[in-house]
Amino acid sequence: MHENSLFVKFKNLLGEIGFLSDPVDCRPYCRGARYGQGDSLAVLRPDCHEHVVEIVRLCREHHQALVLQGANTGLVAASTPDGSGRFLVLSLERLKKYIAIDVVNRSVEVDAGLCLHELNQALEEHGLFFPIDLAANPSVGGMIAANTGGAKLIKYGDVRQNLLGLRAVLMEPAGQILDLRHALRKNNTGLDLKHLFVGSSGSFGVITRAVLQVHYLPRQTAVALVVPRDQSAVLELLQVLERDCGEYLSAYEGISGAALDAVLRHVPAITQPFHPEPCPEYCVLIELSSRADTSTGLDLNVLLSTCLEKMFGTVVENAVIGRAKDLWRIRHAISEAVRHEGRVIAFDISMSRSNLVDFRAQALQLIAAHYPWIRVMDFGHWADGGCHFNLVWPSDASEEFSDHIVQQIRDQIYDLVVLRHQGSFSAEHGIGPYNQMYYQRYTSQMQKHLSGQIQGLLDPENLLGLCRFGE
Amino acid sequence: MHENSLFVKFKNLLGEIGFLSDPVDCRPYCRGARYGQGDSLAVLRPDCHEHVVEIVRLCREHHQALVLQGANTGLVAASTPDGSGRFLVLSLERLKKYIAIDVVNRSVEVDAGLCLHELNQALEEHGLFFPIDLAANPSVGGMIAANTGGAKLIKYGDVRQNLLGLRAVLMEPAGQILDLRHALRKNNTGLDLKHLFVGSSGSFGVITRAVLQVHYLPRQTAVALVVPRDQSAVLELLQVLERDCGEYLSAYEGISGAALDAVLRHVPAITQPFHPEPCPEYCVLIELSSRADTSTGLDLNVLLSTCLEKMFGTVVENAVIGRAKDLWRIRHAISEAVRHEGRVIAFDISMSRSNLVDFRAQALQLIAAHYPWIRVMDFGHWADGGCHFNLVWPSDASEEFSDHIVQQIRDQIYDLVVLRHQGSFSAEHGIGPYNQMYYQRYTSQMQKHLSGQIQGLLDPENLLGLCRFGE
Repeated sequence: MHENSLFVKFKNLLGEIGFLSDPVDCRPYCRGARYGQGDSLAVLRPDCHEHVVEIVRLCREHHQALVLQGANTGLVAASTPDGSGRFLVLSLERLKKYIAIDVVNRSVEVDAGLCLHELNQALEEHGLFFPIDLAANPSVGGMIAANTGGAKLIKYGDVRQNLLGLRAVLMEPAGQILDLRHALRKNNTGLDLKHLFVGSSGSFGVITRAVLQVHYLPRQTAVALVVPRDQSAVLELLQVLERDCGEYLSAYEGISGAALDAVLRHVPAITQPFHPEPCPEYCVLIELSSRADTSTGLDLNVLLSTCLEKMFGTVVENAVIGRAKDLWRIRHAISEAVRHEGRVIAFDISMSRSNLVDFRAQALQLIAAHYPWIRVMDFGHWADGGCHFNLVWPSDASEEFSDHIVQQIRDQIYDLVVLRHQGSFSAEHGIGPYNQMYYQRYTSQMQKHLSGQIQGLLDPENLLGLCRFGE
Repeated sequence: MHENSLFVKFKNLLGEIGFLSDPVDCRPYCRGARYGQGDSLAVLRPDCHEHVVEIVRLCREHHQALVLQGANTGLVAASTPDGSGRFLVLSLERLKKYIAIDVVNRSVEVDAGLCLHELNQALEEHGLFFPIDLAANPSVGGMIAANTGGAKLIKYGDVRQNLLGLRAVLMEPAGQILDLRHALRKNNTGLDLKHLFVGSSGSFGVITRAVLQVHYLPRQTAVALVVPRDQSAVLELLQVLERDCGEYLSAYEGISGAALDAVLRHVPAITQPFHPEPCPEYCVLIELSSRADTSTGLDLNVLLSTCLEKMFGTVVENAVIGRAKDLWRIRHAISEAVRHEGRVIAFDISMSRSNLVDFRAQALQLIAAHYPWIRVMDFGHWADGGCHFNLVWPSDASEEFSDHIVQQIRDQIYDLVVLRHQGSFSAEHGIGPYNQMYYQRYTSQMQKHLSGQIQGLLDPENLLGLCRFGE
């Protein structure tokens, strides 16, 4: 078996701590953050760039397929092996020694295995942060591979927009290095190759270093939970905020009544924020934030309440301005809370903001008409067109859970999103085995043709990961 | 001659107005915005996407090379033919009928030939604008091909960061359409192919449509011209502004004393802003701007003057807070004014902000030591690391103008920028015949290898434009 000689090489290269072959040790690396369990031949855990180079070179030489893994927080199974047992896992979790903060340039160069929380911890003492806001703690390399968005995209952009440079190890030419570690905000010297590695699920090379733009932490924040008159008012309110509060708007998170309800039921510490009013049908968490402190004359709490007051009785039905932490807690509790209600059918979709109201009405009607036992517990980032149109198949539903029906629902919702509303079936989770079939279905022939050709240039033997972007 | 039958086809397709073959009519399309004059076989001026498709198809069929041209404002000769006479010019100047503004989504879909001023005129009635700030009036397609930056990048990003989608006509497969006209802020469904067309000088296809993110116009602006203590203080001041004025900083433009001096000499309407103090050795134009008006409690003039006052006598030596228009007029007059002083040797470089002070000192010293008759009249976008390290060979210099010496100076300055300071030799002007040799010199083997392979996929016969990104 070729594996044996290859494995001996890996063991010699990486040592005991860097090479796991016992199935028990490998198991966690083959399990998805939320779903799925696969199998691997072994797990490689290099702690330096040079070892990554050697691993890629050896894998190519032995035609050995690899799945790249950062912190393994992805939700589309792109960072765990399938059940075939033909993959090695290349975990970058130990590649996290290097971090160089350049305060003057507001940038940081880091090893790709460093995680978001560690990065932000290091940045905090300089008053800086990397503005990707999400519940998980992904690695920097993983965030690039998924082009992570998060809740603050409207103010700070996604990972791509804060990525200045990177270094990647290529499968073709095997083990060669593409070094694009610029700390440059303006650089137009030909094709900007770093974009091949952004949002492409680790299919084009192994990122070992990244140069990121970072931002100053806000000095004041105002957060409100607002009940809009109806769904159209959600967009009206967003427009007013963008028009009048300009660059302060840092989050605009829609929360359905059913999602809020689930939070209240399953997280006893959280109280109904509109009490004694009943739980609303829909509400929006609004965050304004600014680096300018109140000594500048700007008080975001005053600004937000003044702005909301003007809309009271027309666009806005009810509002609470509260402690940021308390109100965000509601939003962050949703994913977990809805899981207590039954099996979650999660969606990570996006579209033009203009289409969100129509889409939601149509999707709600579709579910009510054909799947009346399914509960819609959606929430979403309206400011960037993102929507987690999450559904729950209740544990106590009369209808027995069926993968076939779930598939049918997925197909119908995605058709509505993509075909009718020109939206995206994967807004911020990227492509992996869980949605590869939708990539095939919704991506144009020409896109697949070109993407496949480019993938062929960089991975001619199909050794990197599980995603295929070709026809 | 194959041209005759091809030209008859073009004439039939495009009519008199769309097909120019008289050398006198063609001449302006072969002349660069600032430099150079080439020759073309003919000029094609389609006014619809379908005609672009047919042109590309026919060109491929006849192995006919094309140079793409928008508003022809580029400075690296990428949009005009060379002297070989083998190119057709494909001008998109008439492709400008379509404009669809989506106020709710803060986006606009436009034909690629539409120009920046026309776009902003249409957006203005909605209180919106496309935030690329520069003296020229490029087309949308041209701005994408050059990834235009401009003076407000630090607040709004470059064209890439505001590009949501596009549609391109490909040379391979000939005349096929890559339709990526999403109005999506979050979309991660595989390789994001639109980035192939950004900053790549029209070498990968003909952009016919673009979907852009737009922004609300600022409601208040404060502008100051500040004399920092010395060069280090330029960066200290920038840091303080970013720390204390946060998201308001929309421009931070360094102006050398020599550049200011040239403006004062050649634009009599502009008076010395620090009078009766002498003209400073270096000054910085600072702009704060916000969508929030003064009714929010925020007064940017007060904020800026308070902030500057605190630094008086330490970081700041002198400052005038003036009417935005008057102070910007100084900045915008530089390019033209220095031209009156002699032959301009222009640079469009960038680097990490941290390196700017050292670079400038070294570059000044290099010029003084070896080319004492050359005057440095630099200015630059310090906040994004950009620097127009422009030199003037004075009309009355003792040394006679020499292309050879200019070449030598270019080589030395670029070496300093790229090799010593890991900077870029083309920050915001892109790649064209004027800097193609520096692309060859400073781009890594691996970058050229990959870029060339990708270019080969999209233009296997080298028919699109003058840039070659391969080895």
